[in-house]
Amino acid sequence: MTKMWKVAVAGSNGRMGSEAVKAVENATDMELVATISSAAELKKLVETGAEVLIDLTVPAATEQNVRFAVENGIHAVVGTTGWDEHKLHNLRTLLTQHPEVGVLIAPNFAIGAILATEFAAKAAQYFESVEVIEMHHPQKVDAPSGTAAHTAQKIADARAAAGVAPSPDATETDEGGSRGADIDGVKVHAVRLRGLTASQEILLGDEGQQLVIRHDSFDRKSFMPGVLLGVREVAAHPGLTHGLDGYLNLR
Amino acid sequence: MTKMWKVAVAGSNGRMGSEAVKAVENATDMELVATISSAAELKKLVETGAEVLIDLTVPAATEQNVRFAVENGIHAVVGTTGWDEHKLHNLRTLLTQHPEVGVLIAPNFAIGAILATEFAAKAAQYFESVEVIEMHHPQKVDAPSGTAAHTAQKIADARAAAGVAPSPDATETDEGGSRGADIDGVKVHAVRLRGLTASQEILLGDEGQQLVIRHDSFDRKSFMPGVLLGVREVAAHPGLTHGLDGYLNLR
Amino acid sequence: MTKMWKVAVAGSNGRMGSEAVKAVENATDMELVATISSAAELKKLVETGAEVLIDLTVPAATEQNVRFAVENGIHAVVGTTGWDEHKLHNLRTLLTQHPEVGVLIAPNFAIGAILATEFAAKAAQYFESVEVIEMHHPQKVDAPSGTAAHTAQKIADARAAAGVAPSPDATETDEGGSRGADIDGVKVHAVRLRGLTASQEILLGDEGQQLVIRHDSFDRKSFMPGVLLGVREVAAHPGLTHGLDGYLNLR
Amino acid sequence: MTKMWKVAVAGSNGRMGSEAVKAVENATDMELVATISSAAELKKLVETGAEVLIDLTVPAATEQNVRFAVENGIHAVVGTTGWDEHKLHNLRTLLTQHPEVGVLIAPNFAIGAILATEFAAKAAQYFESVEVIEMHHPQKVDAPSGTAAHTAQKIADARAAAGVAPSPDATETDEGGSRGADIDGVKVHAVRLRGLTASQEILLGDEGQQLVIRHDSFDRKSFMPGVLLGVREVAAHPGLTHGLDGYLNLR
Repeated sequence: MTKMWKVAVAGSNGRMGSEAVKAVENATDMELVATISSAAELKKLVETGAEVLIDLTVPAATEQNVRFAVENGIHAVVGTTGWDEHKLHNLRTLLTQHPEVGVLIAPNFAIGAILATEFAAKAAQYFESVEVIEMHHPQKVDAPSGTAAHTAQKIADARAAAGVAPSPDATETDEGGSRGADIDGVKVHAVRLRGLTASQEILLGDEGQQLVIRHDSFDRKSFMPGVLLGVREVAAHPGLTHGLDGYLNLR
Repeated sequence: MTKMWKVAVAGSNGRMGSEAVKAVENATDMELVATISSAAELKKLVETGAEVLIDLTVPAATEQNVRFAVENGIHAVVGTTGWDEHKLHNLRTLLTQHPEVGVLIAPNFAIGAILATEFAAKAAQYFESVEVIEMHHPQKVDAPSGTAAHTAQKIADARAAAGVAPSPDATETDEGGSRGADIDGVKVHAVRLRGLTASQEILLGDEGQQLVIRHDSFDRKSFMPGVLLGVREVAAHPGLTHGLDGYLNLR
Repeated sequence: MTKMWKVAVAGSNGRMGSEAVKAVENATDMELVATISSAAELKKLVETGAEVLIDLTVPAATEQNVRFAVENGIHAVVGTTGWDEHKLHNLRTLLTQHPEVGVLIAPNFAIGAILATEFAAKAAQYFESVEVIEMHHPQKVDAPSGTAAHTAQKIADARAAAGVAPSPDATETDEGGSRGADIDGVKVHAVRLRGLTASQEILLGDEGQQLVIRHDSFDRKSFMPGVLLGVREVAAHPGLTHGLDGYLNLR
Repeated sequence: MTKMWKVAVAGSNGRMGSEAVKAVENATDMELVATISSAAELKKLVETGAEVLIDLTVPAATEQNVRFAVENGIHAVVGTTGWDEHKLHNLRTLLTQHPEVGVLIAPNFAIGAILATEFAAKAAQYFESVEVIEMHHPQKVDAPSGTAAHTAQKIADARAAAGVAPSPDATETDEGGSRGADIDGVKVHAVRLRGLTASQEILLGDEGQQLVIRHDSFDRKSFMPGVLLGVREVAAHPGLTHGLDGYLNLR
């Protein structure tokens, strides 16, 4: 814990970025050396000797920011969306020229959500039945959530790999569609409820027993421990890592 | 508790009936005076001085059993299905000739399930959002469960009576049908999971808070406290009562 | 809903008061006519024609504020603590001179928490076992929470009134005290967990079934629907009402 | 799945043993070749060509049964208690003379309970707060349950190894003991509720998020998938394995 990380935050006036500024300032092993609001300010990364850039900006800005960091030997922890295959390919190419630099691009920094998905996929090979329920605030426009769809797919893949039979289901009549969506054989239900932020619950059932894994995100602060974990680990993981699960000790 | 009820059980060799026999035998305020397996044995009701008949038989037998009881001044607690409007009408007519006799016909004797429905309907007038999730064993052929559909309808009625707006829902895309069935404006989700018997969960949400009411039935023994409550209360409720909630003190 | 309530908020620069200001401003049937930060500003109540005063101040100020309101024929909805028996007695005396004025003093405005307690007390007469688990943020200095203690006491009272036996418990060894606190025969457990605000869960068990009633408060916004309900109902309830449950339609 | 395992069950007239007989008979990849009720019947193991012995007997019988199996080259899956260090030492010695034989001794065959403990210990290194709640039927004489104590200890060990600070707790007053037992820094709460069999819930909390892992055992049938897994895996794990987690694929 004697290491003090010199950290810069890009997108520091956004909602996530401003939380990250606070989180870095409160971390006893980090020093906030720069905040960056535009491309013109990227040079501050070099001037301040930043070791890690946290990028929480917008799709139009993130690529330029991350490439600038890599070219200057600065690691990057990225929560911005918009990294398509083309951009990722170019970034990997750039990283081969800077083999000591690490970049983490993570679609979800809530450690609990990632663990819930990992645990569910592992457990799903041992249970006859599995279903997913996600619960979100009622302003959400898509259903089911991307996280729940991702969880269901990982469960389906794990069951396929282990040769598990489909979840039993004798339903004959369900006119209203109460049985939910089917993602590769895994049922997914979406609840919309005022008061909630983002939750997912995985139900696993077998003869005489049930295992339930539930994650609740109450607040965007829930992403900050994952961001800080990324800062602490990124230098030890050179190259591109996709997904925070690559940094978690799950063995 | 000094009163000792003389109780007979019809359908005593069925699954529910045999549980009822055990429950009556274990109740300190009841005496099992007769078990009845066929119409020919109905006279035992009179011979043994039975005060209450528990009918847990089959649709083809229940009407004859209950009418025999009423005609002989014996109260009846009935869990058998098949009581259509025609049979109920005839029973009401018969009861007018025996105004001291009480009959309880209850589709569900699980006190907790009835309370869950009642509480949910009361609470639903105070919350912006409400959804229902029911969870059952995977041999169940219909979805959603009758209990969940009944709960959703009672919630919808209570909200209509109180002038509550529909639950907010900004969903634009839901190709797979993850948002579940819609019962008069209340979303209902059905989960099928090995290991479960019968559960229902009502989620109520408002700004900054959530109220969850959940009932789990693990075993058909869960119906017995309700059956015994029916035996103790039926004499005090002459005429026909439909639903055990009529005997519960919910004020 | 054509009635527009003229509402004043005392304590408008406090945490709860500032939420109340926002809530009143957002309510389509209310008009915020005054905010009051000191005794010197109380006259604004009269000048603006306020009909209802929301008092969310401090124990040292609340009595003067409420008495001023009552003396001027203005109803009051009070969430401030510190109303001991002496102050309540004096207020009741004052109200006899203003029989048309209503005052609500409520220790808890979270409608869901009040409903959870009410429902639990009603259900507890029908279940063999009942226990309470409260869960709060780890800065809380007292355990168990006042709400949980209140819930346990109401459950104990309801069971005593219904003649229910104590919850069965064969525990012989429990050196570490895992079975929790005992409030008049009802076990209460307190969990402290980062990320939570205030939750309580009541578990009711019987042969083969379980009923769970859970309330989660995620945010102090959860109190606002109860405050607004108080504003809408206070004029229809002249005299002193203690506890928001007096305004809820629970029959 | 073409392999057909020849399986014998010792203790076949006990509660667990009779469940195991049914489970083996229902398994499509197993053949029940013998049931053993006494030491005199052990020779049936050899006569029937049994490959795996399931021992669900009593402490006084299990050692003799398992040693007989090992001496005859038969694998053993053991759920009987009473294996102290002395007996285990002797068994290990015997196994060195039969290096191809596998023995599994498992205190708990409920796969879900084992997974819950494993997942909780892994997750506990990433969360600020963690507490354990166990819930059992009210005939249980000890509190907290052995499983919950074991889970709490594994959590404590994982946090110690990862250098995680103790869960924050500002409690100053708790006269009644609502905060539960302390197992190496991890709070454990025990609930006793009619209707439940055996449940444990691990709550993990961090800034703005919560992860809950819950296992419910409804019935002793919940042990059978673990017993069958043991039968299928024991030959591939020569020597002594303690705990079913040694056979689970958790990477």
